[in-house]
Amino acid sequence: MASTIHRASTTAPVNIAVIKYWGKRDPKLNLPTNSSLSVTLSQADLRTHTTASCSSSYPSSDSLILNGSSQDVSGARTQACFRELRALRKAIEDGDDSLPKLSTFPLKVVSENNFPTAAGLASSAAGFAALVRAIANLYELPSSPTELSRIARQGSGSACRSLFGGYVGWEQGSASDGSDSVAFQVAPAAHWPNMRALILVASAAKKDVSSTSGMQTTVATSSLFASRAAETVPRRMNEMQKAIQEKDFEAFGKVTMMDSNSFHATCLDTYPPIFYLNDTSRAAIKVVETINTAAGKIIAAYTFDAGPNAVIYYLEENEAKVAGLFKAALGEKDGWVGKRGDAIEANGEALEKAKAEASVALESLKEGVSRIILTGVGEGPIKTEESLIDEKGEPISL
Amino acid sequence: MASTIHRASTTAPVNIAVIKYWGKRDPKLNLPTNSSLSVTLSQADLRTHTTASCSSSYPSSDSLILNGSSQDVSGARTQACFRELRALRKAIEDGDDSLPKLSTFPLKVVSENNFPTAAGLASSAAGFAALVRAIANLYELPSSPTELSRIARQGSGSACRSLFGGYVGWEQGSASDGSDSVAFQVAPAAHWPNMRALILVASAAKKDVSSTSGMQTTVATSSLFASRAAETVPRRMNEMQKAIQEKDFEAFGKVTMMDSNSFHATCLDTYPPIFYLNDTSRAAIKVVETINTAAGKIIAAYTFDAGPNAVIYYLEENEAKVAGLFKAALGEKDGWVGKRGDAIEANGEALEKAKAEASVALESLKEGVSRIILTGVGEGPIKTEESLIDEKGEPISL
Repeated sequence: MASTIHRASTTAPVNIAVIKYWGKRDPKLNLPTNSSLSVTLSQADLRTHTTASCSSSYPSSDSLILNGSSQDVSGARTQACFRELRALRKAIEDGDDSLPKLSTFPLKVVSENNFPTAAGLASSAAGFAALVRAIANLYELPSSPTELSRIARQGSGSACRSLFGGYVGWEQGSASDGSDSVAFQVAPAAHWPNMRALILVASAAKKDVSSTSGMQTTVATSSLFASRAAETVPRRMNEMQKAIQEKDFEAFGKVTMMDSNSFHATCLDTYPPIFYLNDTSRAAIKVVETINTAAGKIIAAYTFDAGPNAVIYYLEENEAKVAGLFKAALGEKDGWVGKRGDAIEANGEALEKAKAEASVALESLKEGVSRIILTGVGEGPIKTEESLIDEKGEPISL
Repeated sequence: MASTIHRASTTAPVNIAVIKYWGKRDPKLNLPTNSSLSVTLSQADLRTHTTASCSSSYPSSDSLILNGSSQDVSGARTQACFRELRALRKAIEDGDDSLPKLSTFPLKVVSENNFPTAAGLASSAAGFAALVRAIANLYELPSSPTELSRIARQGSGSACRSLFGGYVGWEQGSASDGSDSVAFQVAPAAHWPNMRALILVASAAKKDVSSTSGMQTTVATSSLFASRAAETVPRRMNEMQKAIQEKDFEAFGKVTMMDSNSFHATCLDTYPPIFYLNDTSRAAIKVVETINTAAGKIIAAYTFDAGPNAVIYYLEENEAKVAGLFKAALGEKDGWVGKRGDAIEANGEALEKAKAEASVALESLKEGVSRIILTGVGEGPIKTEESLIDEKGEPISL
């Protein structure tokens, strides 16, 4: 009789921070120099789908296939996740002899993203969250999302926040073993469900002409970084949690924009300087400023991760004023077709008014944006029966 | 008999800071939140030429003509300079009855810049330094450049540094009346005469698409600004003075680049953010980094004022590696013809090597730079007999 192929599948979301993670106090454990906070985005639009499986019949080494390509799993980060999850499984097996010894079997993991990998969206957060959640399901671990966030953090720092839906914080913690550096849910998606996000994906040609050096260079060389980590972010974490609790978009938006600017300011203060914002990014900022000026209050908020793509948060009730304007300006770009995009009418009137203030910026956006993605706040990882590995242990392409 | 026309003329230099002035603790007196330090540039390349005159026969109000156009002199800044200089003259007149009462006569000032006003070079520094120096000459004031710097500062903060040649600091001071917020010479031009500067003037079309909001918004809204003013700049002022005393270009260049980045970082951390660097600026940074990498040490240092123009400092002995590379890349732009430019050979070999690292940046520079200016460290204001006002009190166009 052939050995059993054990399988479990999940999907996990992307998250986009509104208080940024930048700087590690422990690079090995991915322990951050400051807390952070993100919005989990809907998996209908952006998700990683992962099947974890194990079997005594598998070749002896663990393997991972992402989007059809074999990945190296020998890296310390992936190994840390495998090791921690196996240890949790082994503790259960040690207490119950009737259980199959899954912790001793080789792992085979297959993963697929439903978004263009070329888009420059940080897919590692969804990837490691899905990997950890799928293996936890496979091992039938009773672990909470908090406990799993501690493990996912070791794969990719911001992955810990993708273990929860809605509005999610990551407490920096103080323990040297990282045991208290975990994610927590500030509020579920249902608390403030009308949060939308428009992502302006910048053309590859418009990307960084400068350094691609990382966050540890900032920690080592930026003279402004210390005050960001020690003073600015702790204050903003409180302001942001309050804004979310009170569903106060103006406060949410202002802190979001200021924190994005602060993060990129410390990148620029790095030596040599790190630039993620380009002229397209600046144009997106200008257009958001114009939208807010026209509205007389903050109804749109930009944020930028480590790249030129703008993520613009807004509330559903302001869709015409925000996404509608961008549809009028960028309607010919990919991404407007589908359930979310069809519902948005191009707002030519708002665009005409915006041109008075921001015609150069609007031209620059047209030139520099390659596609758009429409999404909104969403749920955490979702168990699925759709397997990417068949009964014989072979990868399936969906 | 016609009344005497009293006249005196001077030229004054532009200065480009290597430790930036940004933020006022007293906007009326132009008292800064931090000290700063600059290199005075040669007047052979960039200067304001100013003639000050006065006469009892002049129409009753003071007047100023700049580059052939009448300027408004009613502003508080110009008025402060006129008032302070008249007070110093009056004190002398009060002690010596034989002197003509120049302090009671209307002033007529005529000024001309020898550089393109569209270049976006901060001409107010040279302008107010020349205005103050010319009137001081007219009034035969015994005032030192230090004393005159206190007056010029009230016209335009950075103008105080243009009262000296060479390497010039501006001590922020602590007195509420600004009496100790004056310029001082760190070293004369002759101490380190081989300092060169290449200015890459960015095309107008490439300029700021975003906010043009000023330094007081940074003081009010940037959470990182306080640590720059309180900690970063005081440390760098010491490092920079030591580098100049020791003619240590590597230290000079590193602090120059880091301080420019720090200044622009606090601009980006302003709410709403202020952007002066654009993709052309970033390309210039990348090319300078490539030059330094190829040299194995810092031989070129970029700095940016409140605009996208790069000022690149280097030593004469590295002209082929720095300016020579830019001549190979940007040889078709205006500015290479003349005494300084003719001496520079286009360094095609260095350009070819740089292309491996920075081909996108080099293309971006070609697209975004409109002209170049070659200059170097130079002297402070120079008295001249060339008058811009004739014996009858009429403006002369040279």
